[in-house]
Amino acid sequence: ELQQLLDALHPADIAFVLEALPLDQRLAVWQRVKAERDGEILLEVSDAVRESLIADMDQGEILAAVEPLDADELADLVEDLPTEVLPELMASLDAQQRERVQSALSWEDDQVGALMDFEMVTIREDVSLETVLRYLRRFDELPAQTDKLFVINQDNVLTGVLPLHWLLLNPPEKMVSEVMAPDVNTFHPADDAYEVAQAFERYDLVTAPVVDDAGRLIGRITVDAMVDVIREESESEALSRVGLREEEDIFAPVWASLRNRWSWLAINLVTAFVASRVIGLFEGSIQRLVALATLMPIVAGIGGNSGNQTITMIVRALALNQITPDSARRLWRKELAVSLFNGLIWGGVIGIVAWMLYGNVALGLVMTAAMTLNLLLAAFAGVGIPMLMMKFGRDPALGSSVMITAMTDSGGFFIFLGLATLFLM
Amino acid sequence: ELQQLLDALHPADIAFVLEALPLDQRLAVWQRVKAERDGEILLEVSDAVRESLIADMDQGEILAAVEPLDADELADLVEDLPTEVLPELMASLDAQQRERVQSALSWEDDQVGALMDFEMVTIREDVSLETVLRYLRRFDELPAQTDKLFVINQDNVLTGVLPLHWLLLNPPEKMVSEVMAPDVNTFHPADDAYEVAQAFERYDLVTAPVVDDAGRLIGRITVDAMVDVIREESESEALSRVGLREEEDIFAPVWASLRNRWSWLAINLVTAFVASRVIGLFEGSIQRLVALATLMPIVAGIGGNSGNQTITMIVRALALNQITPDSARRLWRKELAVSLFNGLIWGGVIGIVAWMLYGNVALGLVMTAAMTLNLLLAAFAGVGIPMLMMKFGRDPALGSSVMITAMTDSGGFFIFLGLATLFLM
Ligand SMILES: [Mg+2]
Ligand SMILES: [Mg+2]
Ligand SMILES: [Mg+2]
Ligand SMILES: [Mg+2]
Ligand SMILES: [Mg+2]
Ligand SMILES: [Mg+2]
Ligand SMILES: [Mg+2]
Ligand SMILES: [Mg+2]
Ligand SMILES: [Mg+2]
Ligand SMILES: [Mg+2]
Ligand SMILES: [Mg+2]
Ligand SMILES: [Mg+2]
Ligand SMILES: [Mg+2]
Repeated sequence: ELQQLLDALHPADIAFVLEALPLDQRLAVWQRVKAERDGEILLEVSDAVRESLIADMDQGEILAAVEPLDADELADLVEDLPTEVLPELMASLDAQQRERVQSALSWEDDQVGALMDFEMVTIREDVSLETVLRYLRRFDELPAQTDKLFVINQDNVLTGVLPLHWLLLNPPEKMVSEVMAPDVNTFHPADDAYEVAQAFERYDLVTAPVVDDAGRLIGRITVDAMVDVIREESESEALSRVGLREEEDIFAPVWASLRNRWSWLAINLVTAFVASRVIGLFEGSIQRLVALATLMPIVAGIGGNSGNQTITMIVRALALNQITPDSARRLWRKELAVSLFNGLIWGGVIGIVAWMLYGNVALGLVMTAAMTLNLLLAAFAGVGIPMLMMKFGRDPALGSSVMITAMTDSGGFFIFLGLATLFLM
Repeated sequence: ELQQLLDALHPADIAFVLEALPLDQRLAVWQRVKAERDGEILLEVSDAVRESLIADMDQGEILAAVEPLDADELADLVEDLPTEVLPELMASLDAQQRERVQSALSWEDDQVGALMDFEMVTIREDVSLETVLRYLRRFDELPAQTDKLFVINQDNVLTGVLPLHWLLLNPPEKMVSEVMAPDVNTFHPADDAYEVAQAFERYDLVTAPVVDDAGRLIGRITVDAMVDVIREESESEALSRVGLREEEDIFAPVWASLRNRWSWLAINLVTAFVASRVIGLFEGSIQRLVALATLMPIVAGIGGNSGNQTITMIVRALALNQITPDSARRLWRKELAVSLFNGLIWGGVIGIVAWMLYGNVALGLVMTAAMTLNLLLAAFAGVGIPMLMMKFGRDPALGSSVMITAMTDSGGFFIFLGLATLFLM
């Protein structure tokens, strides 16, 4: 039955099931999970779902759940735990664990220091591989993902790494110092996690050492954590583009969703109001030629979609560091050229349609000109907005879709109605 | 100088540099790359950049570049090579390599068969660990990412795996059969690559065996390939949402960009035209009350942004398999509730503003009602469109932003102008 099924599942699978269940059923399943597995499952679920599970646990259950966890894992959970349990929790740790938890908590979520773990195998360089092999046999288990051993000196300074491959392929008589690789991808706890993830991706790493400023080995980064960073980065980019504050438990109560979506909806309200006032400036023209009201959303809408295409590409290229100040000018030139073509061709088509619908050549020409100008504006803003955000140290994806749409709406109305007022009235 | 710098760089770093350079400079650098490194670099660059590099090479250079590659790597490049070189290329391979290349090419890009590699270490279960250790020392190198050996019987059927950890931790006298893990994450060449990547992510795998229907070992999947799959999936989701056909070389010539963006721009032209015709139905009303033209983009715009928020969340949840037919109803209910609140509150605010601006209470009420209804439509379509796409086997992200905007534009104009015509005229 359910109980047995759950016991047989990997913690990540249970986490998956919990995330896909509405709250009431989720808590029913959560009750059935063996207490000693609670901790590893809490680590796997999304932040939003974790909150819902922890809210259902009492202090004793929480303490029991986190008891079997490593220091780095504990640090991941701490911020989601109710503050009442923290004193007792910290008191239950030994000195080394407490220090590690505090170290992990001292770094931002997006820094290597918060993501590294502390379990790793270290060796000295003045021993033979034979000795290393004998030393390893005394372990019950190696830390997960171990693909290399870390070579340190008596000051705990990292002097190289010994990939397990080389330990296995070389004759046992050889010394570690003869076989080890001195030159490695080494990271610092203050490094940006996403940049380190990109290094893992680029160099196909499985684990990498983390050292302090003096070169002392303090931890280890593993590829599974980096996969999670890549996943989270891409999700948060997708979410922040449309102005969602954070990942949402899709079964979250309504008020939690409202809170998640309101900040940008409020901004959007202001931008929509601005666009409306822009039209308000030209009410006289619309009164005289009502076709303007009918045609103006075409100019705004196509500008918005085209701008969203450009901004999506630029945000992505910025995230991958593919844009230098030097190449920015070229990009602008290219995007403006693309827009010019699109404006003349598609704007031309729409202009002809407008001409035929309303029997007014001038109106068609104004339409074509406005489309072209609004597409140029879309290209200009699509490249410029994310670059500006970047310059001011902001996330270039943040609300990019809302902002570009605001520009192309207000801009499109202004351009179209302005040209119409100048040339048709 | 440049030459020496390039020689010292990792192929992935050279690829990165090439991608960030405009075409002329890119080709200048490409000329300086040592011929024997061309192949590994071609593997690392994006498809778009690869095309630009290959276009610059003659037949002899291409053949020399791919000569050092493994069969699976070769298969990755083949589709981007000019067809003239293929006969000579295939003729240069030995029988096993040719068969492997053909096998890799026989699968779709998003199937495991196209991504697996063929290099792996296999052992028998009736030997001692000591024997395995001695066997390994005969290798010059192990395949990259090797974290486990594959145990097969005389029919090449996979009977288990031997993680390197266990080989190292257990006494050498033990037999492989005593130590190996029989139960492993095993995949098939027809499996969907993204689902396998999710399994890697979930179970923190480094490598996994690929077997055919008879259980025979035919290849191996490695985590670095899965990281690339996750990356590509998230990129292509972001791009296809706004209707970009594929990843673009940001320095691509203008016509290549036009081609990439036209299909959805053309669709957008049609949807914008439809929205315009919807307004056209109500030109009489606008003529009588020009404020309608001024206010209608607010209804459409806020509906569009809200719908984009919903659809982004749903597309993401679908990609992670978090939505079941059973939970769909709940989701709809929740999203509609969120919209109802937002419509009444923000729509109420906008209604009051409209009332004050135009001194017309009824107009304010129509505004509030229209906002609420359009937000409900946005929620309905934001959940419904991706679910429908999924049902018909389409990618739910594809053009989702364009489609939801089309619904909320046309729908918003119809609702607002329709209500205004009913109640204000
Ligand atoms: Mg429980
Ligand atoms: Mg957290
Ligand atoms: Mg951590
Ligand atoms: Mg850990
Ligand atoms: Mg890689
Ligand atoms: Mg690679
Ligand atoms: Mg719009
Ligand atoms: Mg070259
Ligand atoms: Mg390809
Ligand atoms: Mg391949
Ligand atoms: Mg390979
Ligand atoms: Mg994982
Ligand atoms: Mg894990």
